Amino acid sequence: MYIGIDLGGTNIAAGVVSENGEILQSGSIPTGKGRNADEIVKDMAYLANKLIADYGIEKSDIKGVGIGVPGATDYSTGTVNCVNVKMDDYPLEHEFRKILDVPVFVDNDANCAAMGEYTINGKGCKDFLLITLGTGVGGGFIINGDVYRGFNGAALEVGHMAFASGGILCSCGRKGCWEKYASVTALIEQTRVAIEKNPTSIMKEFVKKRGKVSGRTAFEAAKVGDKAAQEVVDRYATYIAEGIVSLENIFQPEVITIGGGISREGDSLLEPIKKYVEKYRFNKYLSKTKITTAKLFNDAGIIGAAMIAVQK
Amino acid sequence: MYIGIDLGGTNIAAGVVSENGEILQSGSIPTGKGRNADEIVKDMAYLANKLIADYGIEKSDIKGVGIGVPGATDYSTGTVNCVNVKMDDYPLEHEFRKILDVPVFVDNDANCAAMGEYTINGKGCKDFLLITLGTGVGGGFIINGDVYRGFNGAALEVGHMAFASGGILCSCGRKGCWEKYASVTALIEQTRVAIEKNPTSIMKEFVKKRGKVSGRTAFEAAKVGDKAAQEVVDRYATYIAEGIVSLENIFQPEVITIGGGISREGDSLLEPIKKYVEKYRFNKYLSKTKITTAKLFNDAGIIGAAMIAVQK
Repeated sequence: MYIGIDLGGTNIAAGVVSENGEILQSGSIPTGKGRNADEIVKDMAYLANKLIADYGIEKSDIKGVGIGVPGATDYSTGTVNCVNVKMDDYPLEHEFRKILDVPVFVDNDANCAAMGEYTINGKGCKDFLLITLGTGVGGGFIINGDVYRGFNGAALEVGHMAFASGGILCSCGRKGCWEKYASVTALIEQTRVAIEKNPTSIMKEFVKKRGKVSGRTAFEAAKVGDKAAQEVVDRYATYIAEGIVSLENIFQPEVITIGGGISREGDSLLEPIKKYVEKYRFNKYLSKTKITTAKLFNDAGIIGAAMIAVQK
Repeated sequence: MYIGIDLGGTNIAAGVVSENGEILQSGSIPTGKGRNADEIVKDMAYLANKLIADYGIEKSDIKGVGIGVPGATDYSTGTVNCVNVKMDDYPLEHEFRKILDVPVFVDNDANCAAMGEYTINGKGCKDFLLITLGTGVGGGFIINGDVYRGFNGAALEVGHMAFASGGILCSCGRKGCWEKYASVTALIEQTRVAIEKNPTSIMKEFVKKRGKVSGRTAFEAAKVGDKAAQEVVDRYATYIAEGIVSLENIFQPEVITIGGGISREGDSLLEPIKKYVEKYRFNKYLSKTKITTAKLFNDAGIIGAAMIAVQK
């Protein structure tokens, strides 16, 4: 058995996972904003130990622990650099093993999510691309069953491809990165602007009721026939689809899966994307990439982290 | 020994190539505009036979022939689809072997060029990306010594990534593809517009002398201090660099090489590109991708096609 840990800015989620990617026992604890790395590692190890006890097994039954982190990792040393979680050149593998001494493998969270989705929903695919739409836009690419990481471990920052050159300023310093249009953060901003421009839109009521604009606001309002909301949804889907066509033209993977919380919108997101892709993909003659939404949601990171430990 | 053939819209270039990628004998003949596929294949085989004779060897000394074509290839059947050269679902491998019966391997020309540059200038790189700037923008990606083709053989159409969403209409049907900004065709158009806007620019003289606007016009004029020309060069280099940063963020390859005729401009093209990349690349902490210009020019396709035959 293995343990997969998904370290996020809000929660630490973990599970005891079988060799085939089945979650046998899972749990989560808050990451706690602003806490230092040592405290977070203690909690990660505490959660792992708790899961071992809850499932009624011994430490010796655990062959490895995989940890997905929201940042860049150095695979040779298990050192990580994260922004949202305070880990600056932090020897995560070393520190974790001080508390729970089992083989530990650290990877980027989008890589883990891709490996998780691939294990459960993409098995046998030659090449499998996961795009995660969230605060930013990330990606993970599985080729012949392995995570593609580039020569330095930092590949698949698909959110930072030029998309609308000279457009909205991105945190990376460039103008017009894809994530400024296709992330949920961007969708929230697009929704906010639409509400301002259309004060009679039912979106305004929804926001009042829920206390804030969210990624779901426009989707919910569109479902009850609000025109301004439908426009937001259509434009957002087009932004995603445009980037997906770019990535299909570059990778020609067997499958592209759209992940992140927004993928729960299912067909109301997926159908307009598929329509655009069908029309504008460059490859008109050969076998075509299948476009899907992710199925594992929050479990993808846990399962994928464990599967990376299985592989190693 | 092997034979590499680079089938282009203008010329068929070929060479007898050693197992290590050294060209031992080479030659070329015009493709001939509008000629049908059977005539072209006859010329390709004629050229191959001529090279064998010229180098003083026998057909039995040739272990394989690699052919790079400007289009999509089906590897399992050796069938090709090209637009610039009239080959529509054409069984190239089969037809070639009717005339010269040796093992034949057909691949996309950008893949061959990438394999050629990799063999001679990138050996040992974990991942190597070639971008070819010409009539359009293409690419080839070598990973662990192998061409990456995607699940259907059509990958690395990097010219068709969304770059300036909603911008210049592309032949693929989308607006704002990278190749509408970074191809040599685009540079020529950018130069033409600049000359119109700046009638006193020395570019006008250069065009009069040479009879046409070319990809070199602005570079030549910039070298003698023409301000409007320098602006064209700077903007063009930025367009290329913006796309290169996107590809670096996606692949994090050890090397990105800029190929195509325009890469002969060397440092006047490469230096502004490197400056932009240095400033805007996403990865600020880990080892960084090396950006270079191609070194083999027209030989890359011949060598790469032969090396793909070597591999197979």
